[in-house]
Amino acid sequence: MNPRIYGVGSSLFGRQPGTEVAELAARAGLDALRDAGTDQVDAVYVGTVFGEMGAAQRATHRLGLHGVPVIRVENACASATTALHEATAAVAAGRYRTVLALGVEHMSRLPRGPLPTEPRDPHGRAGLLLPAMYAMAATRYLETTPLTREDLAAVAVKNHGNALANPLAEFGARLTEDEVLASKSIAEPLTLHQCSPISDGAAAAVVGAGRGHERDVEIAASELRSGGLWDSRSPHVWGFDIVRDTARAAYLAAGIAAHDVDLVECHDAFTIGEVTTTESLGLAEPGEGYRLVRDGVTAVDGKTPVNPSGGLLGRGHPLGATGLAQVYEVVTQLRHEAGERQVAHARTGVVETMGGGVTGIDGNACVVLVLRGRDR
Amino acid sequence: MNPRIYGVGSSLFGRQPGTEVAELAARAGLDALRDAGTDQVDAVYVGTVFGEMGAAQRATHRLGLHGVPVIRVENACASATTALHEATAAVAAGRYRTVLALGVEHMSRLPRGPLPTEPRDPHGRAGLLLPAMYAMAATRYLETTPLTREDLAAVAVKNHGNALANPLAEFGARLTEDEVLASKSIAEPLTLHQCSPISDGAAAAVVGAGRGHERDVEIAASELRSGGLWDSRSPHVWGFDIVRDTARAAYLAAGIAAHDVDLVECHDAFTIGEVTTTESLGLAEPGEGYRLVRDGVTAVDGKTPVNPSGGLLGRGHPLGATGLAQVYEVVTQLRHEAGERQVAHARTGVVETMGGGVTGIDGNACVVLVLRGRDR
Repeated sequence: MNPRIYGVGSSLFGRQPGTEVAELAARAGLDALRDAGTDQVDAVYVGTVFGEMGAAQRATHRLGLHGVPVIRVENACASATTALHEATAAVAAGRYRTVLALGVEHMSRLPRGPLPTEPRDPHGRAGLLLPAMYAMAATRYLETTPLTREDLAAVAVKNHGNALANPLAEFGARLTEDEVLASKSIAEPLTLHQCSPISDGAAAAVVGAGRGHERDVEIAASELRSGGLWDSRSPHVWGFDIVRDTARAAYLAAGIAAHDVDLVECHDAFTIGEVTTTESLGLAEPGEGYRLVRDGVTAVDGKTPVNPSGGLLGRGHPLGATGLAQVYEVVTQLRHEAGERQVAHARTGVVETMGGGVTGIDGNACVVLVLRGRDR
Repeated sequence: MNPRIYGVGSSLFGRQPGTEVAELAARAGLDALRDAGTDQVDAVYVGTVFGEMGAAQRATHRLGLHGVPVIRVENACASATTALHEATAAVAAGRYRTVLALGVEHMSRLPRGPLPTEPRDPHGRAGLLLPAMYAMAATRYLETTPLTREDLAAVAVKNHGNALANPLAEFGARLTEDEVLASKSIAEPLTLHQCSPISDGAAAAVVGAGRGHERDVEIAASELRSGGLWDSRSPHVWGFDIVRDTARAAYLAAGIAAHDVDLVECHDAFTIGEVTTTESLGLAEPGEGYRLVRDGVTAVDGKTPVNPSGGLLGRGHPLGATGLAQVYEVVTQLRHEAGERQVAHARTGVVETMGGGVTGIDGNACVVLVLRGRDR
């Protein structure tokens, strides 16, 4: 039997400079334990990027969980889904009966400016940071596919709009494409509203071997792959291959095809990211991802809603928390408890997170989960 | 069947400011793959504390391992043994056939001075950093047990002496107790030669399900526990309970008692650490650890040699690499390939690593491994 998610929890997302990182983690962790109806787990996996050494231990200490193994994992933006992936594997293997997966990041205390790079990383010195990488992908898409700047802006309009209905989200606004395009340029052609913000937040999930509760959500597949960015074996832009390969493996493991997916939370760190990722997830042919948002396919009331929570753009993007915030949303949707942003007929949901280094060139991790709610 | 270590690898330890972190990792990783006689693994676990986000991905990229899952773990000084623990569990569960566990740290590029603390951590602000914590433990031991300052110094004399015979070690010196006690005071009563240094280094191991090679070493037990430092349930000083509980669980799993242990690599970050840890590992009664070094029990030619590699004091202590450097030593000893520092009749070896935050107060992780070589 596949492992189940017994409960999910989340803090508010957004800048909370006065809140300690362990406090943020405790809010999400306690919320998840309460939701799961338990106060004990056999192990804890904590995803965090910038937490000082031992931060995972400190966060767990706050939860009053004594003696159990605590393991911090880090895979850049995919840290929280890596934590869930490892928790799921441990439960599936019978190592533990229940495991808490926790993701937390406190970014508002970091120095302003670009994220720190390895001082001797030549890509970092050259300015090939993630905004630049995504901008290069966008430029290539604008040149080689029918995608327009307005299509990119439409992704931001959709996701910021979705966030309006998410009480945990950092943002939420009714923007127009013109407003998005007129916002400050960050990395040409990407403007401010097309970039995910610096946030603080935490999210969590309790994974167990299965107990037959009606609200529990099945982890039908969890796949994690790694790979380089510019791979001479591929003609594609940034991340395309690794996301495609990971998604294929996850769909195969879950016994589904892309057209079976009822909703997606994916890695829209920048608007172009949602376009290339939805293509890689098989929702559109390569180069035709622009149609999804243009035709309303990925709207909350569309055929396959993408980022109904607001995504990284609208909910905020505290790196190490993001993957479990995506899980929180999909679980809530599959339980049909998402209120006014509820996706109709949600039964099969996909979570995709992508994590690379500051430049991402030398290595990325991708996690794809297939989650399944009960028949209705 | 318990998983086996097929191969181990290591870089040189010591300050190597001109070497990039991914290069260090690649040296140890390639060394381990070569030693294991393989060039492919199914997954990689990387322990590192200060590596920037994605550093694990970058390090693996250098090794030419494409597509396989790469997961960074962090548990402060226990990061590398946490990586091995997770690799071992994954192999034992049948998730993967062979896994590379890699530990790497490049500390000479960090700003000089105390390690960075969470800015709002009141313990850190108060100066309760690890040297102070160990100093408090030493002071209590000097007060409540027969341990003398000379006994503490004798630990440094032994381990720096052992390092002389270890070609990978950062240090190695014939010191006298007087020289150790006369060196600069770091945190009274601990002097410079009683404190492990800031180092660069990497170490690695390839873990597999078993294949019958003569040089392979059995992982008879791997246990990981977490806990707070000052626990009102215990009368003991820093780390005693968590190490004792983890060791007991490991001995039980391996079917051994403390007197079956032929050699130990343990966490002598400071001299007092070796004393309290050897007690917690059951080599002496609580409060009587001073006898072990005073009576020569833990010398390379003693009944139970401790830190024949030189330990953290003599080999150096690049945080995220240390645990696998310990494993490298014990595997080398169990293969009877340790040259002039070879421990006679080595068949069962123990590795113990302790990792806490910068202050360690709010949470520590401890890993204890029991490794077993072939009958001779």
